Amino acid sequence: MIRGVVATAPGKVTLFGEHAVVYGEPAIVTAINKRLEVEVTERKDDLLKIRIVNLPLTDITIIFRDKRRIGAELSSEKAEKAVAYIKKAIELTSRHIGEYRGVNITVRSDMPVSAGLGTSAAVSVATITAYSTLLGKKLSLEEIARLGYLTELGVQGAASPMDTSITTYGGSLYIKPTEGGAPIIRKVELPPNMKVVIGYVPRTSTTKELVAEVKELKSTFPVLIENIMKTIGELTERALDALKREDLKSLGKLMDINHGLLSSLGVSTRELDIMVYAAREAGALGAKLTGAGGGGCIIAIVPRDKLENVISAIEVVGGRGFAAEVNCPGVKASPTI
Amino acid sequence: MIRGVVATAPGKVTLFGEHAVVYGEPAIVTAINKRLEVEVTERKDDLLKIRIVNLPLTDITIIFRDKRRIGAELSSEKAEKAVAYIKKAIELTSRHIGEYRGVNITVRSDMPVSAGLGTSAAVSVATITAYSTLLGKKLSLEEIARLGYLTELGVQGAASPMDTSITTYGGSLYIKPTEGGAPIIRKVELPPNMKVVIGYVPRTSTTKELVAEVKELKSTFPVLIENIMKTIGELTERALDALKREDLKSLGKLMDINHGLLSSLGVSTRELDIMVYAAREAGALGAKLTGAGGGGCIIAIVPRDKLENVISAIEVVGGRGFAAEVNCPGVKASPTI
Repeated sequence: MIRGVVATAPGKVTLFGEHAVVYGEPAIVTAINKRLEVEVTERKDDLLKIRIVNLPLTDITIIFRDKRRIGAELSSEKAEKAVAYIKKAIELTSRHIGEYRGVNITVRSDMPVSAGLGTSAAVSVATITAYSTLLGKKLSLEEIARLGYLTELGVQGAASPMDTSITTYGGSLYIKPTEGGAPIIRKVELPPNMKVVIGYVPRTSTTKELVAEVKELKSTFPVLIENIMKTIGELTERALDALKREDLKSLGKLMDINHGLLSSLGVSTRELDIMVYAAREAGALGAKLTGAGGGGCIIAIVPRDKLENVISAIEVVGGRGFAAEVNCPGVKASPTI
Repeated sequence: MIRGVVATAPGKVTLFGEHAVVYGEPAIVTAINKRLEVEVTERKDDLLKIRIVNLPLTDITIIFRDKRRIGAELSSEKAEKAVAYIKKAIELTSRHIGEYRGVNITVRSDMPVSAGLGTSAAVSVATITAYSTLLGKKLSLEEIARLGYLTELGVQGAASPMDTSITTYGGSLYIKPTEGGAPIIRKVELPPNMKVVIGYVPRTSTTKELVAEVKELKSTFPVLIENIMKTIGELTERALDALKREDLKSLGKLMDINHGLLSSLGVSTRELDIMVYAAREAGALGAKLTGAGGGGCIIAIVPRDKLENVISAIEVVGGRGFAAEVNCPGVKASPTI
């Protein structure tokens, strides 16, 4: 019998503080009930065979020997990116545990890719967890989060530990970078009655491009953009207070303000704004873009009896809307049956 | 022969700093080439007869004896508001010069009313100028601006001297309130090649409502909203630098940032945002709502060869678009021919 391990890791949404977190301000993120699954099974040889079922992508299979690609049944730009994270995760995990073995890797997900939902962190962390478990090494969550961060860093050249932390630990986290040291990461409780709706449109810019554009804007108007970042930081602290008070109305208002501040940084789009207005008008307590912007996702805090209204309103204006559970569990591994 | 005086006063657009100016931050305004005309002619009796031709409104005539209305051919809510400014302007001007005479007043304008273009200031200042000139008293610009401010204060209960100053002096002004004293008002030069397009949609909220909503938001999140106001103040200072450098590209970027900050205060609408995106995509260097928001106008800085493009783009999304000259002359009086 072929032995195998399946690990699943959650996607995330940033509730408050994206972009500002790049400049040292705090952010609040939560794990959602959309999960990405990585299955790792043994091979008799030293090949690394990666199959990506739907990210959403056409079904593809790529085969590597050592670091050299020896076969690809189909490819695409998005597939290349997913494969880069998987290869880097296997490489770093092998080095960490001092052992490499050939494996078959299958990735399955129903999350939109490049939408700010943290799929690259989820695929990295799930790969690290499944692969190390198959090899009989139980890594701590700290080790997994660290290897996940290094995977993103290796592929992207720059990374924040936010996405890899939330997909590893799950729940909800307050993350504040510190100068030159490890970020402050604290668990945050969310109000039990907090319901969110996510709206999605395809992205027209990458995170890398958007972060670079904000950086350029900051070099043109340093004090002004610094003020906006600090204002977002202040907003995130007020959101933390409102979470403690379980004050959904204030959280909604703070989301609206945060969306305007993100717009002032130039990262919103007409499509995102239209979804935000649609959600508010359909009964959301507040709404904002979530993630890097340039298309991708919005998040809205919505009273339970308005969930269907808000989802419909998002679909009417051309987005894909879905209700999401927040505060969901982090990465989990189990043997393949 | 019946003697008469015609005074015309310009509308204005706020280039930077609306709302924040209420909280002590600077703003930059410019007079545009849309003018409101007030014609004052002698009467043999002491009646005050006001005729409003198009504000745009149905043609109406209202007759007052002393402060009591004795006849109205047609009325509407907008007409009532215009009439209130005219009555108050006549009352304050009469008191200032120590003489009252019955007159016929005719108001003509092609500016949209309640659109943030300063029509109430223009009607007040043009009335004061025409009426005092007819009575043979030449008031200084300082006296006119002061009486205009007091007129707005009397009708609205609260007012900023911004609109009445710009329609009196014309040109472009940097205005910064001071604590408990007169505001700092300085003339500003605009780049000679600066072209703007204005887009208009009907308003859904009044200035009074919007100012009150921002005030309430500030009482809920004092530090946060104070930070946003200060950030807008910093932005206006950077805009002043860019004006001096004749740097239209930076001015455009600063408009975009200012629009996001105004959105964060909750004063933009879907319709305004759609016009802003339409203008930017059609080639504007930057665009923002201008005035109090809640519908009304946007302003875009546009290269000369893109003016028609931007106007069309605004019309396509349902707004009324027009090119406007900036830096136009202030109030002018001349005898009726």
